[in-house]
Amino acid sequence: MTATVDAGGATGAPAAGGRQVVVQKYGGSSVATAEKIRAVAKKICDRRAAGADMVVTVSAMGDTTDDLIALARSVSGAGHVPDPREMDTLLSTGELVSAALMALAIRSLGYEVVSLSGPQAGIRTDNTHGAARISEVDTKRLSRELAAGRIVIVAGFQGLAETEDITTLGRGASDLTAVAIAAGLKADRCEIYTDVDGIYTADPRLVPEARKLAEIGYEEMLELASLGAKMNPRSIELGAVYSVPILVASTFDDKPGTLIHGDASMMEVRKAVTGIAVTRNVGKIMVPGIPDRPGVAADIFEPLAAAGINVDVIVQSASAGGKADISFTVADGDLDRALAITRQCKSCGGVAISGGRGYAKVSIVGTGMTNSPGYASRMFRALALARVNIDMITTSEIRITCIVDAGQVEAAARALHQAFELHEASPD
Amino acid sequence: MTATVDAGGATGAPAAGGRQVVVQKYGGSSVATAEKIRAVAKKICDRRAAGADMVVTVSAMGDTTDDLIALARSVSGAGHVPDPREMDTLLSTGELVSAALMALAIRSLGYEVVSLSGPQAGIRTDNTHGAARISEVDTKRLSRELAAGRIVIVAGFQGLAETEDITTLGRGASDLTAVAIAAGLKADRCEIYTDVDGIYTADPRLVPEARKLAEIGYEEMLELASLGAKMNPRSIELGAVYSVPILVASTFDDKPGTLIHGDASMMEVRKAVTGIAVTRNVGKIMVPGIPDRPGVAADIFEPLAAAGINVDVIVQSASAGGKADISFTVADGDLDRALAITRQCKSCGGVAISGGRGYAKVSIVGTGMTNSPGYASRMFRALALARVNIDMITTSEIRITCIVDAGQVEAAARALHQAFELHEASPD
Repeated sequence: MTATVDAGGATGAPAAGGRQVVVQKYGGSSVATAEKIRAVAKKICDRRAAGADMVVTVSAMGDTTDDLIALARSVSGAGHVPDPREMDTLLSTGELVSAALMALAIRSLGYEVVSLSGPQAGIRTDNTHGAARISEVDTKRLSRELAAGRIVIVAGFQGLAETEDITTLGRGASDLTAVAIAAGLKADRCEIYTDVDGIYTADPRLVPEARKLAEIGYEEMLELASLGAKMNPRSIELGAVYSVPILVASTFDDKPGTLIHGDASMMEVRKAVTGIAVTRNVGKIMVPGIPDRPGVAADIFEPLAAAGINVDVIVQSASAGGKADISFTVADGDLDRALAITRQCKSCGGVAISGGRGYAKVSIVGTGMTNSPGYASRMFRALALARVNIDMITTSEIRITCIVDAGQVEAAARALHQAFELHEASPD
Repeated sequence: MTATVDAGGATGAPAAGGRQVVVQKYGGSSVATAEKIRAVAKKICDRRAAGADMVVTVSAMGDTTDDLIALARSVSGAGHVPDPREMDTLLSTGELVSAALMALAIRSLGYEVVSLSGPQAGIRTDNTHGAARISEVDTKRLSRELAAGRIVIVAGFQGLAETEDITTLGRGASDLTAVAIAAGLKADRCEIYTDVDGIYTADPRLVPEARKLAEIGYEEMLELASLGAKMNPRSIELGAVYSVPILVASTFDDKPGTLIHGDASMMEVRKAVTGIAVTRNVGKIMVPGIPDRPGVAADIFEPLAAAGINVDVIVQSASAGGKADISFTVADGDLDRALAITRQCKSCGGVAISGGRGYAKVSIVGTGMTNSPGYASRMFRALALARVNIDMITTSEIRITCIVDAGQVEAAARALHQAFELHEASPD
């Protein structure tokens, strides 16, 4: 499959032994109005005319999903959590509307086309309403429609559970539909069209010299995605497992985007650090001097999980005299609740728990860092030179994250971008 | 089944040998806002609390269907007729939204409920997109959900074709979904809730003394429905075939509605004439002196059908010398096109074809007229006394229709209402 990967251009050569199969995805902002739908339809037809077999997944138009959620809250009344099964039926209609409208627009341009719901397209899921996981893509109908010469439009974000009920895959999961279909069809590649034109070495609003990456590996992209880049992390994972090359590009300009793929031969010569990710609105809680014995961490974090509070970074350092310090971060908005819950923790009797908001998280990401010492110290030195104080540190195989003062995160990102020479193109 | 028929009240006694099964339908104006959905949900729950097993079909909210049609036209561009298959997928979403919202509202009131799409509810149809006919109602899932104690909300107006594609049953066909499900489940009755509170002896806006009927037979209702009463004629037909008693009543008041049924024992003592129907905007075309031989009528009406023009009343009278006169009516808006097409008919060479708009149709309907002479003459006499000129006459087994001047139709309807004593209650 890698033989047909074409990192830059918008059209590729047909795969050896058959027609090229391309799966595309257009997000909600790309189909927000009738005019935009017609423009996207033109783009799809041009690609079809150039020789590709096309499957296209679409999201709901603009704010449709938010509007439907507001309606659901309104009929449910205050204090009632809307039933997840009914919410799935309700929300799945937004993508059906987009898919049918896109098919109508394509047909008016003279091309054969059919729209399919997620269930019709063979997307099978588990029964977890609101956040279903895809269990299988039955490609029979998709293959039949493609063989009949039709462009196939698939409503994203939805599937069919074993119970024969409609499920949705979670917010932003139309990407996932596209990648899953690409994997099922063994497509030559999956193209995610959105309102950004690719993946950058850092957020260009923070770091003006940020540079668009021509390519990035799945693992690095996964770290960046979970750190705030506009991609669904689950779709990157799925792409990695099935080796689906994923292009991220802008809907309405023709600049080359970023190709996410796993071709190691291309990666060897790449820089160790691929990009810098920033998350703001971080709240920090410190629990100093707690007993250093089994079960204490569970005592602290179980009540937070039960309350639905998402804990992000957790750092525990051994301290003297059989005591340990635990620090962790939560979203700013959850800080007060998290503090109150943590103070009631039975292992924390007599401990002076403190917390504060106004922090940010800055990370460097790159597979090249694995087994290469020195990146952490280089990062800390760069931050020190920029007079950025480091509050917490946590690392993974391919990522180093520092918690810093929110007011300093922009300076931190720029300093790191400079230190790791990300403004210069890769040597490949 | 007739033992459980309950013409007046809103709740009935459980059927002998089991729970009472009631199928209800709420139209688009009954679910147009979140507030109305909550009010209808309350009504459904109260009925459920009174002991009935409930299946409820709903239409799309307010103007949703019109809005979706406008969007489809907009993406298709001028001059393109939107593809019927894609239109069906698109339009079916309106009812899915209503069904899910209704289920959410009912759940917030503490009742077990599930919403089903037409396909999930087992509505199977032929492949005629835009106007599919129901071929079967597979009640397995419906019965399973009822047995589990759930209220079942079904998206009206839609089904699944043999091709596994979504079909719609035609505008206003949510009634049809309800009656078909009632037939499939052998429900005790089907209740159509709408913005009118029943079937009247005449349109109350035309005839102030018009009276609401407590009951009416299927055949009479079918004539009235096809003459403009706000009911889907196909649902009456289906009700007649499967003997489903159908109650038509207002959503938001508790007045008894009109029960449409076929219980002959109740009908024997009824008046011969049940009601008066009026249709306006009628255009008339006269084709005098055409050859009285086989094929001439086909020569005239085939081109009109091919042009999609709906011909309503057709009257042919034998004339002297092997010639015949044919007159027929079309909608006012179709008159000019119909005239042009008729003038090109090959059998009409040299015939002075004329036409005019500004007519109306007034009919008396009643099964009691069958085999009872004198109703036609009584009708004509009443019109004559009211100085209403009759332009065309056509009759069926249970209906007599006159084409009159549009300006006189109100006087005609009042005169007939008076002549047939419809303002007085039935003797039952």
